[in-house]
Order: sequence, then C-alpha cells, then structure tokens
Amino acid sequence: MTDLAVVKAALKTQAVETPSWAYGNSGTRFKVFAQQGVPRSPQEKLSDAAKVHEFTGVAPTVALHIPWDKVDDYAALAQYAEDHGVTLGAINSNTFQDDDYRLGSICHPDPGVRRKAVDHLLECVDIMDATGSRDLKLWFADGTNYPGQDDIRERQDRLAEGLAEVYGRLGDGQRMLLEYKLFEPAFYTTDVPDWGTAYAHCLRLGEKAQVVVDTGHHAPGTNIEFIVATLLRERKLGGFDFNSRFYADDDLMVGAADPFQLFRIMYEVVRGGGLTSDVAFMLDQCHNIEAKIPAIIRSVMNVQEATAKALLVDRDALTEAQRSGDVLEANAVLMDAYNTDVRPLLREVREEMGLAPDPIAAYRRSGWAEKIVAERVGGQQAGWGA
Amino acid sequence: MTDLAVVKAALKTQAVETPSWAYGNSGTRFKVFAQQGVPRSPQEKLSDAAKVHEFTGVAPTVALHIPWDKVDDYAALAQYAEDHGVTLGAINSNTFQDDDYRLGSICHPDPGVRRKAVDHLLECVDIMDATGSRDLKLWFADGTNYPGQDDIRERQDRLAEGLAEVYGRLGDGQRMLLEYKLFEPAFYTTDVPDWGTAYAHCLRLGEKAQVVVDTGHHAPGTNIEFIVATLLRERKLGGFDFNSRFYADDDLMVGAADPFQLFRIMYEVVRGGGLTSDVAFMLDQCHNIEAKIPAIIRSVMNVQEATAKALLVDRDALTEAQRSGDVLEANAVLMDAYNTDVRPLLREVREEMGLAPDPIAAYRRSGWAEKIVAERVGGQQAGWGA
Amino acid sequence: MTDLAVVKAALKTQAVETPSWAYGNSGTRFKVFAQQGVPRSPQEKLSDAAKVHEFTGVAPTVALHIPWDKVDDYAALAQYAEDHGVTLGAINSNTFQDDDYRLGSICHPDPGVRRKAVDHLLECVDIMDATGSRDLKLWFADGTNYPGQDDIRERQDRLAEGLAEVYGRLGDGQRMLLEYKLFEPAFYTTDVPDWGTAYAHCLRLGEKAQVVVDTGHHAPGTNIEFIVATLLRERKLGGFDFNSRFYADDDLMVGAADPFQLFRIMYEVVRGGGLTSDVAFMLDQCHNIEAKIPAIIRSVMNVQEATAKALLVDRDALTEAQRSGDVLEANAVLMDAYNTDVRPLLREVREEMGLAPDPIAAYRRSGWAEKIVAERVGGQQAGWGA
Amino acid sequence: MTDLAVVKAALKTQAVETPSWAYGNSGTRFKVFAQQGVPRSPQEKLSDAAKVHEFTGVAPTVALHIPWDKVDDYAALAQYAEDHGVTLGAINSNTFQDDDYRLGSICHPDPGVRRKAVDHLLECVDIMDATGSRDLKLWFADGTNYPGQDDIRERQDRLAEGLAEVYGRLGDGQRMLLEYKLFEPAFYTTDVPDWGTAYAHCLRLGEKAQVVVDTGHHAPGTNIEFIVATLLRERKLGGFDFNSRFYADDDLMVGAADPFQLFRIMYEVVRGGGLTSDVAFMLDQCHNIEAKIPAIIRSVMNVQEATAKALLVDRDALTEAQRSGDVLEANAVLMDAYNTDVRPLLREVREEMGLAPDPIAAYRRSGWAEKIVAERVGGQQAGWGA
Repeated sequence: MTDLAVVKAALKTQAVETPSWAYGNSGTRFKVFAQQGVPRSPQEKLSDAAKVHEFTGVAPTVALHIPWDKVDDYAALAQYAEDHGVTLGAINSNTFQDDDYRLGSICHPDPGVRRKAVDHLLECVDIMDATGSRDLKLWFADGTNYPGQDDIRERQDRLAEGLAEVYGRLGDGQRMLLEYKLFEPAFYTTDVPDWGTAYAHCLRLGEKAQVVVDTGHHAPGTNIEFIVATLLRERKLGGFDFNSRFYADDDLMVGAADPFQLFRIMYEVVRGGGLTSDVAFMLDQCHNIEAKIPAIIRSVMNVQEATAKALLVDRDALTEAQRSGDVLEANAVLMDAYNTDVRPLLREVREEMGLAPDPIAAYRRSGWAEKIVAERVGGQQAGWGA
Repeated sequence: MTDLAVVKAALKTQAVETPSWAYGNSGTRFKVFAQQGVPRSPQEKLSDAAKVHEFTGVAPTVALHIPWDKVDDYAALAQYAEDHGVTLGAINSNTFQDDDYRLGSICHPDPGVRRKAVDHLLECVDIMDATGSRDLKLWFADGTNYPGQDDIRERQDRLAEGLAEVYGRLGDGQRMLLEYKLFEPAFYTTDVPDWGTAYAHCLRLGEKAQVVVDTGHHAPGTNIEFIVATLLRERKLGGFDFNSRFYADDDLMVGAADPFQLFRIMYEVVRGGGLTSDVAFMLDQCHNIEAKIPAIIRSVMNVQEATAKALLVDRDALTEAQRSGDVLEANAVLMDAYNTDVRPLLREVREEMGLAPDPIAAYRRSGWAEKIVAERVGGQQAGWGA
Repeated sequence: MTDLAVVKAALKTQAVETPSWAYGNSGTRFKVFAQQGVPRSPQEKLSDAAKVHEFTGVAPTVALHIPWDKVDDYAALAQYAEDHGVTLGAINSNTFQDDDYRLGSICHPDPGVRRKAVDHLLECVDIMDATGSRDLKLWFADGTNYPGQDDIRERQDRLAEGLAEVYGRLGDGQRMLLEYKLFEPAFYTTDVPDWGTAYAHCLRLGEKAQVVVDTGHHAPGTNIEFIVATLLRERKLGGFDFNSRFYADDDLMVGAADPFQLFRIMYEVVRGGGLTSDVAFMLDQCHNIEAKIPAIIRSVMNVQEATAKALLVDRDALTEAQRSGDVLEANAVLMDAYNTDVRPLLREVREEMGLAPDPIAAYRRSGWAEKIVAERVGGQQAGWGA
Repeated sequence: MTDLAVVKAALKTQAVETPSWAYGNSGTRFKVFAQQGVPRSPQEKLSDAAKVHEFTGVAPTVALHIPWDKVDDYAALAQYAEDHGVTLGAINSNTFQDDDYRLGSICHPDPGVRRKAVDHLLECVDIMDATGSRDLKLWFADGTNYPGQDDIRERQDRLAEGLAEVYGRLGDGQRMLLEYKLFEPAFYTTDVPDWGTAYAHCLRLGEKAQVVVDTGHHAPGTNIEFIVATLLRERKLGGFDFNSRFYADDDLMVGAADPFQLFRIMYEVVRGGGLTSDVAFMLDQCHNIEAKIPAIIRSVMNVQEATAKALLVDRDALTEAQRSGDVLEANAVLMDAYNTDVRPLLREVREEMGLAPDPIAAYRRSGWAEKIVAERVGGQQAGWGA
C-alpha cells in the first residue's frame, strides 16, 4: 500500500522549472502568431514565471536562454527574480541563430566558427557564476542536410574537443547537461542525435556532464521511459526538457499528446530515485496558438498529475506480480494507479500548501492576463529571435 | 527492349516547374539564413528561374505564390516571364501567414475568417485568368494542436463548403490541385492529412479537382509510389510537389534523400501514363543552407535521371517475370534500369537540345551567381514572409 | 451537462464482438508459446467466449475465422453458441495460409490462384447464410516484398474484379467489411495499405461495402480518430478491429498501449453517431504471453472505460469553447472527461445489469480457468495454423 | 582520385558471412511457405553456402545457429565445411524458442530460467572452441509486452550479470557481439533496444565485447551510418547483420529497400577503417517468397556494389569541398560515386579472381537448384523451428 502522506510530501517538494522563452512568442517555420501581453524583456518574462509559481507552488525556478535573456547585470536579474518569488535556473546556450552557424557551431568545419561557439558557451558559464545557476544546458542544432556535406566522424572529434574545453571551465557544483535530438533543424545528420551519443560524450567528460532527455526529441516508437530507467541506472540522467508531441518535436504542453507515456516516464523516475536526486525537471515548450501563462500552468499541473499517479503505484504488489510472472496482474497494478483520478488529491495538496485548489481558475481570477495586455503595449515582444 | 530514341524524345519534352519561392530565403523555425544575391521581387525570381531553364532545357514554367508574388499587373508579369524564356505556372494560395489564420483558414470556426480565406482563393483564380495559369494549387495549414480544440468533422464540412465555392469559380481548362500533408504546422489534426482525404474531396467536387502528391508529406513508411499508381488508376493525380526528406517535411532537393524511391515513383508515373498526361511536375523545396539556383538545377537533373531510369526499364521482360512469379528476376529487371548510369545519356540529350552537357558547370561559367550578388544589394530579400 | 442515465443506458447496450482465434494460441514469427487449457475446437472457443460475455455482459457475439473454425454443420454451431448465451458474428476469410498464396490471393498474377481465393470468399458468404452472420470481414495479406515483383496497378484491377464478384453474391442485410493494413506480411507493397484504398474500392462496390479500421494497421503518427471521423462522415465506417500497439501490428490488448488514443477514437465514434449505428466493434488481438480469457475480459473493459469517458464529455461546453476559439478550455473540457475515473460508474452499470462489479475477479472465482486446464488435455490446441 | 587497383584489391579481399538459417525455410507469423530443395541438415546448409562462395568468391564463412545447427561433432562439421570450400563463422545463440523463455531468457524474473539461458550461452562458447569460431553473436528476444509487466531496471541488472559470466568464459581471440533491436518479438520494452544500450554494456564488459548493427533493427528515421561512424570512432563496432527493410525488421535482401543507405553505410565503414579491421560483415535475412540461394548471391553482390561505390568516392575532393563548406559540391562528390555503374568493375574483379562475371547466371547454369530439388526429398526441411 502507498502511504498518502508520503505521496503528498513528495508532491509538495516537487519542482518544475519553467523556461523564460515559453512566455514569449513562438511558432513554426510558416508563421509566428503574436499574442497580446507577451513580455518584452527578461524581467517581464520573470514576472510571468512568478505567476506560474504563485498559483502552482511548484515552479520556483526559471531557465534563461542566452542571448535571448542577455542583460548587463545578471546579479540584478537574479535579485529581480527573487523579489518576485522565483530564482534563476539553468542557463541555456544558443549557437544556432547567428549567420555564422549556417553549417554548425561547435562542429563547424571552420575553426573560427567553432571558437566563436565555444566562447559563447564559456560566456554562459560566466553568467552561471553571476546568477548562481547550477546547470548549463547545451542543445546543438549542429548537423548536416545532405549526405557528404561534412565528415560525420570529424564533427564528433570537434564536438568532443569543444565540450572538453567548456567542461574544464565548470566550477564546483556546476553541471553540463547535454541534450540530444533526432532531427531538426538539421535533416540528414544531427551531431548529437540520440541518448547513446550524448551518453558516450558525457561519460568521457566526467561526472559533471549529464544527459538531458527532451521528451519530443526521439524517433517514432522510441521507448522513452526505458532511456530514463537506463540513464538513472548509469547515473547519467541530468534532467528533462518536458513537452509533448504527436509527430516530431511539436513542443506541445507536456502530457497533452500521451498522458500515459508521461506517467510511465514519471514512474521510472520515481522507481529509479530520480525524484529525490539532482534530476532537473524543466519545461521546454512552444505555445504557438494557446495563451501562454495558463498553458504553462496546465503543463506544470500535468507533470504533477503524472507524478502523483506514479507515486500511487503499489510497488509491493507490483513487485510481487512481476516476480511471479503474472503479466496481467502486474499490468493491472500499474494501470490501477494510472486510472486513478488524482485531481482531488492535488487539490488537497495545494490547499495544504496555502494555494487555491484550481491554479488555472485562480490565475484567471487574478486579472494578470488583462493587466499585461493593457500594460505591455509598444516595444518589441520577446520571441525566438528576440 | 527499350528504344533509346523514344527515351530521349520523352526526356526532351519533360517539363519540371520550379517554384518562385525556392529562389528566396527559407529556413526552419530556428533560423532563416540569408544568402547573398537573393531576389527582391517577383521579377528577379523569374530571372533566376529563367536561368534554370536556360541550362536544363526542361524547366519552362514558374509557379507563383500569392501574396508573396503579388504584383499590380499580372499580364505584365507574364510578359516579363516570356521575355526571359519562361512562362507562369501554377498559382499557389497562402492562407497561413495572416494573424487571422491562427486557428485555421477555410476550416476556421469563425465564418468571417473562412470568408476571408475563400475570398483569397477566389482572388487566386482571378490571377490565373490574368496569367493564363491552368492550376490553382491549394495547400491548407489548417488543423489543430490539441485534442478537443475543434470539431474534426465540422472542419471537414467547412472545408467541403469552401472548396465547392472555389471550384464553382474555375473556368474551362482550369484545375484545382489539392495537396495533403501529414502534419506541420498543425500538430494534432491536419484537415487534409492524407491522400484519401484529398481524394474524397476531389471526387465530390468533380473532374477539375485533382490530388497533388508532395513527396515529403507522408507518414514514415508510406509507400508513395503505391499512392501514385492508385491515383493514376483513379484519374485523380493532378501533379507532384517534388522534394525529399529523411524525417518529416524536410524539403531537401528531390532525389537527395532516397534516389531509389524517386525512381520507383517515376516508374509508376511512366507505367501509368502520367508522363504524357496532365500531371504537373513541380518542385517545392527549401534551400536553407545551399546555394539556391544550382540546388534547383541539381533537383531538375535528379528528376531527369530518375525519369531516364524509369524509361529504361525493360517493360516486356518485367511483365514476363511478373506474370511467371519470378520474384528475383522481376526485381532484377527493375534494378537493372536503376543501376544504369544515365548521366551519359542525359548529356547526349542535352547536346541534342543545343545545351551544355553539364548544366551546373555551365551555370557556374555563366557568371550569373556573381552578377546577382553584385547587383542585388539593398532592398528586401524575398523569403517566406516577404 | 451529460446525463448519467443516458450514459449508463448506452454502456448497457454496447456490444463488443470477440474473435474465436484470440482464444487459441498465437505468437510471433519467432515462437508460439502454447498455453494450458487452450480450446481444441470451435465449440471450445465459443465456450470461452461465452464466459467473457457472462462476466462482462457486453460481448454477445463471436467472430469466426474460416477455415480455422470450419465445421460440417454451421447451423449446429450457431445453435451451440446460442445454447451458451452468445451468437455467431462476422465471418473472417483466410486467403494467406495456403501454399498457393505465396505471391498473393485475390491479387495473385495467376488467374487460377485468384479463382481459388474468390471461391473461398464465396464459400464464406455461404457460411454467413448458414450462421446468419451479417458481416464478411476481408483482410488480404496480398502484396509484394520487392520493387518490381509485380505490377501495382494490375493488382488493383484484380482486386477490384474479385471484390466485385463477391459483392454481387451478398444477400440482403449482408455486408462486406474491407480491412486495410500498412504492412506485414508483405513488406514492399500491400494491396490495401490504407483507408483511402479501402474507401475507394468500397465506394465503387456500393453501400454494402464498408471499411474496417484495425487500430494497429497504420503508419507511425497516423491520427486514427481523424480517419474514424472522416469515414463516419462519408458513411463508410463498417467497424473496428480493436487492439493496441507500440510499434507495428503488435496486437496487444486494446487500450493497453495508448488509452488516451482509444478514448479519442471512441469520442469520435460517439460524436459521429457510430455508437447507435451499424458500426461493428470487434476485437482482433493476440495474447501471446498472457492468459487469454482474462486478457479478453480486460480488453472488453478497456473499450467500456474509453466509451464511458467519451460519453461523459460535456458536448455543450466543448462546442462553446471550440466555437469561441478557446484552445485551452476546449482541450480542458475533453481532458476533464478523460481524467475521470469511470471504474465506479462501470461497477454500478454492471450491478444494474445483474453482473459482478469486477469481471476479472468474478472470472477468477468461477473456476473456469482451472476447469479447462484440467479438461482440455490431449488433442490439437487451436491456433493460427489450426 | 581513387586508385582502381586499390579498389579492386579491396573488393577481392572482402568477406561476407552467410547465415546457415537463411538457406532454410522462414516466414512471417502468418505463414511459412516451404520451398523445394531446402536443406534438411547443417551439412546441406553448408553445401548451399559453399555454392554462394563458389560463385561470388567473397562468402568464405558460414554462421551457425545453435540449436538449429546442433551436431554431435563440431570438429567434423568444421571439416565438412572446409571440404566444401568454406569455414565456420560466428556462433549465434538462441534463447527464444523454448517454452521457458515466454517472459525472457537472460533477463527473466525467474533465476532458474536465467541460469538455463546463461548455460546455453556458455555451451555456445564451448562450440566456438570446437569450431574455431571467433565470434559469439548474441541477440536477445527479451523484453516485455505490457507496461508494468516487469521491472525495466532489474532486467538490466540481470542482463549485466549474465553477460559478465559469459564474457568471463571467452578465450583469447574470442569475442562477444551484442546485437540490439527496437522491437519484436517484445512489443513494449526490449532489453537491448538500441545501440546506446548495447554500447553501455559492452563498455563495462571490456574489449572483447562489441556491438553488432543489424540494419533492420532501428526506429524509423534512424541514421544508421551515423551509428556506424560513431561505433567505429569508439572502437566498438563488432560487425553487421545485413538485410533491408521498408517498415520494421523485414529481413529482405540487403540493398533491396534502400541501396543509397547501404552505400552510405559502406562509405562510413571505408572511411572509418572498418574494411580492414575486425568488423564482421554478415547477412541475416529471410527469403520468405524468393528462391533462397540466388537471393543470397544477390545479397552478397549488393554488398559488393555498395562497397565498390564507397571505395570510388574521391576522398580528397570530398574533404576539400567539406572543409570549404561547399554543401552542393560535397554532396555531388559523394553522389558521383553512388551514381557510377560499378557492375562492369565487379565483373572485371570476378574475372581476375577466376570467377564467372555474373554469379547469378553461373549459379543457374550450374544445375545446383535442380539437383537439390531432386535429391532433397523426404526428411524435415530446416527452418526457424527446426
């Protein structure tokens, strides 16, 4: 039997990091639809993120993206965040939006471009020093579009060399989180296309290098929870970039496309001790057509619901059924937790935390949406290119 | 035995339409890399397209995209094209880059937005009247991102209603080509996601409505040549949007990702009589990182090579092996044509047409690339948003 | 608001047909694991199916597979079924397990093999006359493994010809249900690979020809509920072969791999009027490693749970949110139904039907499993080859 | 420029291992079609394999599968092979065709079953001692069908433990080749589903443990040549199981589905030094509907043709184009080799080796097919279950 008090305690201490860029405009290659009230500065993004934490209670940190969130004074930005009830989280590098990066960044055939990319990463570590961030999150758009375009293996050598230099710059308590992705924006090869490649590089680099699982970055049919279980077993799971997808890297709200998959992932996290370790739970999503702040609140709630269900799995009964080879019973034990409606439990948890039981309704009542639409007029809205 | 003279004659009369937008800048949602010398007007796009035709001899028409190629005087634009040795081809509508289209166009829940979308399509037919274009090519970005977002079936009703109105406006000799696409930019449902849906709508509309096969718009594992054979059998294949892909709608140069697939497609075209019917062979590609004009020349050549191989298949020997159930021999007959190096044959064809045998080299020698880089300075480069 | 009485009434009249072959042994190409107590005759299969109906109350019919369920006297078999509380359902043809069918059946290049295949289908209609079955379910393994092996288009001609002959033989009130499948056992082309092909053939044949959606027969990423909505709109949805899969045609218990997808499918069924029309809800699964009868009971329950959730969707609220373009609210209305734990409701429904609230537990208590293991000793167990 | 003499020399020393089981009957879960003349014993399989080597000159070794090729005296079997002009190759284990393995073998929850599986693997090493085989090829069908069925992580622990015991038993010069596979026969989790998992286990085991790439065992869209390049860079590529597929693990003739992919793979092999190292090139195919011996000859030829094209790549020109960032030229250099018709070159190579230039024609002329059909009458044909 699961102990409800333990489940509640775990749910109260859960932390989901929201990304600054999700509060800005995003879109597909076909169109970015602008929304009213969208932030125009890192500070306004933090204000929005603070609202998400205010109503959910479990989104205390905000990831930054450099240079989208570049400011002159990061300590001041950190203070701004704290004044609004949140703290700064992972620093995300960007080596894909400069014209120099047309053929790659850290894997580019030209050493000059590689230098520029590595310098940017080193600058990100400087920023981490200033913000007190623990994690440098690295996603490389590097790859090729056509067979023969560049040498697959040399690009790995360049990647290894660049990562090693950045790794050497990490301070105590700092980590490098290496993300992998099957494809996009590169369409033939991607230089870190799968968990195996990220794992092999992290293994060589050392303990501070960890793999990030973005739930939208896999080939069709990939069993993500298997990767999660494996990386936890290898002590190489650094964190998640949560989102959901039906096809490719759709970046929909996490849990929206396949809530059962999210539950299975969270079950492996719980089972592998990931909930109480250094695994970072981050969102990385694009709210192209829906209102951004409530979409992020909903996403945080979806992670909570999947976590609650994972925590409710009767582990003893499951183990017994598994050991005895009772396929149907073992599956039934897992499904029993999944089929439970955990929304009442989470409402209780929120009330015990002094929060409104329904974060979306509370956000709507708060008037924040109307306020930012009214106030954030003029200026340049934040977005992927801003 | 195949008759080489017949093969050559077919290759000389082949026509591949190039798209005006492929000469402009394009990219992914992450970045559009600008290139030097890119056209700044519909006229400059036509000039580039004329170069492709000049060196390949088989790209005599240019597709337009409205509003990207909007001009005041389409008759003048048509004359401009003819003065440069090409003519205007299909008119492509755009109902995805206006803020009103956030939730769809012709399938939008709001009748006002649907009206706007249909009016745009009707305007495209007006333009066809002015340009003398035969084909209205319709691709709808319409769809939904989240389960429940809109009613799947009502959207079909709206689609049918809008298409019917536009169909009614078509003049004699004009056609509506309806394209389908699995996903992107919509991530949960797409309103015309597969050939079956496009076919069902075209069937109801009538003979002037035909299906377009974009070779990058299918689910993984889809057998495209089967669809081609089936649509030809049903007399519903209106044309192709050629490109290639490894993953999703990568829009790489046609033939670059899977030249054997392109050969199989062209074999079904040849076998089904599509080479001598009204099937339109169009490119629809994005040259995000490679030089655009030579990439389009290469693409046209790739179609030629696949066509040449398809024409070289020994149909009598194939039929005999197929009828006798000799699996290996039937496969061998097909592979014999595929494994043939048809580049010498195509060089001969070009020389007989009064062209240089190597179009890429001839283009490079022409100095056009240097000329446009030098001349096209300032102004706004054409691109997907221009 | 949904009316619970209406929901309950719908759940009580739901009917899920179970397939005789699912009670026998099955496996993969690597191994068929035999299980104790497996039926050795059509009669024993019907006895097992009767147990599923006894405990669920919603599985009143049993599909037969010819020749696996060949008997001398079908009227006697029908009587046997009725004596056990069930009736005979769809007749499933088999044109893939004879050595003659190596290169196909109804599409085979040899007219003699085609004749044999069509004769078998006609025999199946004879059996339908004897059993009183309404539906002839056609799944063809026909296809090719290698490019060039056979002519794609001629195979379509042969298919059309064969189907037309069988269609002509159908009596009043009889239907032909045509199934499609992406691949397996054919690996290059499949002659009915997608809903579009099945639809096109059924359209030509007439009203008695309808499409069957097997939920495991699609390419990765296919939106099945879209197909369901479309076929219902076109009045061409004949029924379902339910099962679930993570990869290909895994034939796992329906709802096991993606319960949210099953819910979305059932929502489109409900929304499109499919629950109260002639749509046949059938299981088609393989219980390779789990106990068969409880797996089928669980599958029936999974369909019930998805149906219950679909019925609980607040249609008015959904429509309002959809019409107003409120993406998040529309999604939330749908998810609210999905996240509901409907197991208490279904327990109530069962008790009102005079059944035990937990069919699995009731089956376990019944002693049937032990009884058949004890009694069914010797003889040839039923299976895919039996 | 490539040196033709070097290319020819490489082609003459190439070795492709053929699998004993490919000469026997195989099929899908739906049907195994028996063919005339199929071997009835390991000796007859070796005789057929010897014919493949006789006509191709590059298939000198034959892989065995235990227990399918179990004999009392392996030294005698090795002598038999040598008398026929071939030698015994890799020993392939089988831990999936015993009833005990329903829930797995080396990963089974029951320690007794795990013991049995490991004992079988140890027996295979004994056989290797007797046959002089270098490689133990391990493919595990282990996995689960349903979420919750067994503990993902514990299964990894069991796997690691079993592999370690077998690894410890390897003699000098012996290797363990660990194969991965996305799915089938397990449908939810597979215990070695991807190269990353195989790599991680091999890394821990030591230098004698190497990864095998089966070209049909990946998720859709996986870039196999990237994996090949990566494993070669990590010195962990033990060999290939060659075959081809359109959908899943179709096990068609290698090169039949995507000859361009095979070329790209062979290019990475050549570029990474794999052609002159210990990488084992093996076929692992099923000739379900086509004549087996000529299909295997064709497969060997397909590997040769891809290798020849890979060797013909102008590496200097490629490097220059890659370094200068000329995307189109780099791609063109690669395609130039691919588009070359290498069949004349290979005919020359064969003639220089004293072989007939067309192995298929030579085999047909030899009368072997007629001879085995006439002689191999009665007895039990070899197959996957034999």
